[in-house]
Amino acid sequence: MSLIVQKYGGTSVGSVERIEAVADKIEQMYKDGHQLIVVVSAMSGETNRLIGLANDIDTMANPREMDVLLSTGEQVTIALLCIALHKRGIGAKSYTGSQIKILTDNSHGKARIREIDDFRVKEDLTSGHVVVVAGFQGADETGNITTLGRGGSDTTAVALAAALKADECQIYTDVDGVYTTDPRMVSEARRLNKITFEEMLEMASQGSKILQIRSVEFAGKYSVPLRVLSSFEEGPGTLIAIEEGNQMEKPLVSGIAFNKDEAKLTIRGIPDQPGVAYKVLGAISAANIEIDVIVQNVAKDNSATITFTVHKSSLPQAEALLNEIASDLGALEVDADNRIAKVSIVGVGMRSHAGVAATMFEALSTEGINIQLITTSEIKITVVIDERYLELAVRALHSAFELDKPDLNDH
Amino acid sequence: MSLIVQKYGGTSVGSVERIEAVADKIEQMYKDGHQLIVVVSAMSGETNRLIGLANDIDTMANPREMDVLLSTGEQVTIALLCIALHKRGIGAKSYTGSQIKILTDNSHGKARIREIDDFRVKEDLTSGHVVVVAGFQGADETGNITTLGRGGSDTTAVALAAALKADECQIYTDVDGVYTTDPRMVSEARRLNKITFEEMLEMASQGSKILQIRSVEFAGKYSVPLRVLSSFEEGPGTLIAIEEGNQMEKPLVSGIAFNKDEAKLTIRGIPDQPGVAYKVLGAISAANIEIDVIVQNVAKDNSATITFTVHKSSLPQAEALLNEIASDLGALEVDADNRIAKVSIVGVGMRSHAGVAATMFEALSTEGINIQLITTSEIKITVVIDERYLELAVRALHSAFELDKPDLNDH
Repeated sequence: MSLIVQKYGGTSVGSVERIEAVADKIEQMYKDGHQLIVVVSAMSGETNRLIGLANDIDTMANPREMDVLLSTGEQVTIALLCIALHKRGIGAKSYTGSQIKILTDNSHGKARIREIDDFRVKEDLTSGHVVVVAGFQGADETGNITTLGRGGSDTTAVALAAALKADECQIYTDVDGVYTTDPRMVSEARRLNKITFEEMLEMASQGSKILQIRSVEFAGKYSVPLRVLSSFEEGPGTLIAIEEGNQMEKPLVSGIAFNKDEAKLTIRGIPDQPGVAYKVLGAISAANIEIDVIVQNVAKDNSATITFTVHKSSLPQAEALLNEIASDLGALEVDADNRIAKVSIVGVGMRSHAGVAATMFEALSTEGINIQLITTSEIKITVVIDERYLELAVRALHSAFELDKPDLNDH
Repeated sequence: MSLIVQKYGGTSVGSVERIEAVADKIEQMYKDGHQLIVVVSAMSGETNRLIGLANDIDTMANPREMDVLLSTGEQVTIALLCIALHKRGIGAKSYTGSQIKILTDNSHGKARIREIDDFRVKEDLTSGHVVVVAGFQGADETGNITTLGRGGSDTTAVALAAALKADECQIYTDVDGVYTTDPRMVSEARRLNKITFEEMLEMASQGSKILQIRSVEFAGKYSVPLRVLSSFEEGPGTLIAIEEGNQMEKPLVSGIAFNKDEAKLTIRGIPDQPGVAYKVLGAISAANIEIDVIVQNVAKDNSATITFTVHKSSLPQAEALLNEIASDLGALEVDADNRIAKVSIVGVGMRSHAGVAATMFEALSTEGINIQLITTSEIKITVVIDERYLELAVRALHSAFELDKPDLNDH
């Protein structure tokens, strides 16, 4: 008998019929002898309906009251799911975030979990109940209702799994797992049976939006085995867990992530002196523009060049700011380009293997793709290229690292 | 400065526009310098929508989970109303029943309030906030969400007014007050400026469905002045309060209540012996059939006749039961009639005046209306008549007690 936390998102509980289907799935697991904690989101569309009501009154609604409003979405789902479980003869009890209680700080709309009081949950599990918990919500020290922000139900599930030392935290979603790359771009893309937390983080931050980054970090921190599965199809999904066994057997590269949402800004000919990177990037950050890739180099004449990427929607504002900064610093020129794409290869196997970068660059070169920027981390190599070549690049890399071939060690 | 508890029902907060209108009303009161606690119901239709969702899964849903589900209705309204108040520059804070906290017993779906922890409410009022409370709900000792049953928002308002010793509890509804009788039947019916708790109870139990009986009892018990007003029109409404001043100045009769929803059952020729009333009525009650009027008489031959009324929908079941009882007891006959109506005159003035009953019977006799049953209480006389004469009877009594004439003492 194992203790499993399951999380079903809004689409999985989007109608009474789907809630019944979730109840069937839970019934099966329960009859197989597992202890179950089930975290659910609001029925799809409900959160937007509630936001619409609030916006009809005031688009700048008070965050405390928005949390009171939005938290009703999950509360409806927990009750309906329990009713469906009772109909199947399964003892089930629902809990809101305030009831559990999931103690958070008081940052309404983006609260962080501090502590989980699992007393009642343990008691219910022991007495054979399925415990159904409203995702996305908690309460602060004085009992104010808080929400964890969009996607926060994943975080609730992981936090409960960590607090209760669950054997596995299963995230049911509308895809059947994590793929070597986006199957809509490369039809040979293959579902991974297993991936490490670090790899998942690198994949997620590059545009694989299956899981909220925060919940993956959280799961990694507390070593909670996380599994992504489809609520609509049978299948083992993808297990996200800590690295195990012999590094040598690991595939070099686990997946390819990409992103077309960014634009590139370059400032050239900055007189090189301590603090220029701060002067340039500090001003951009101060305007609340998020910066992704940053590359700095020093030219032969000791002048510096800094290149960074921002979301495409922030480009006009960032470019205007950068022009001001350039004239302040006496820099030569500012260059903006919003027709770029970012491609990354991700894999913990890189750590112990040389030559991965060379393979990547060779594959791109063979296709005649020019690399505009390169950045690397321990388990990821990212290049920025012309967005027209994105699909070609992803296909070339997918094939160069043999991601289309089943890996014997990937089981 | 006075402390006022206001309650707005589902129709009054049935749309974003109506919530804005309620916020305007509150703003006015707030600017007049009052401290305000506002209790709201779910937006009209919402409770039925939620019940519909549950029924789609299981029509016999678990009461604990139904409470979790239904309590979201009011929670949405408190948030939206606070957002509307903030837009008007008024500091407002919302509370669910669990947050306040409104401690109840654990009878899900029909919980009774035990205690109100008013600490946070007092603090908020002192700091100039309008406190907005979800009606109809509370939490039991272990934090399970409970609901007080339909109409429970009135009870929440009265309980808060009692706990905080409010100067007045205002119930906003879709009628502008309590009338001498139903204006749809008698166009001369007049709004009462004032009525006692006892009179209101007698009026309410006879079919005036403006206020939940339980909330009137509660208000009477704690002497909370209760005012019924319209949320859509201006006006003073009707104040329900304890008797004051000289009884001699009171009108004899305050109002006329009536009810067409009942049927009459008679069992005759029961050998008179101790316990027959119990044998007859106990069996009916045991079948969960509610009994209203009961009259028993003993005939010359010492056999007893018992007549009672039940809701029309319970008549077939009650009649079948009564036939069984009759054969057990050796009674002579059972008689059922569902074409009856009940008419009552209500007034605390009756206590100190003789001849009220005579006036009533005379008025009915003049119109040729036969009286089938009579029962009396200290402040009410009820007759049962053929339902065809109901309107005639109400009009005759309304005129006989001069209810159509403005009363100088009724201010």
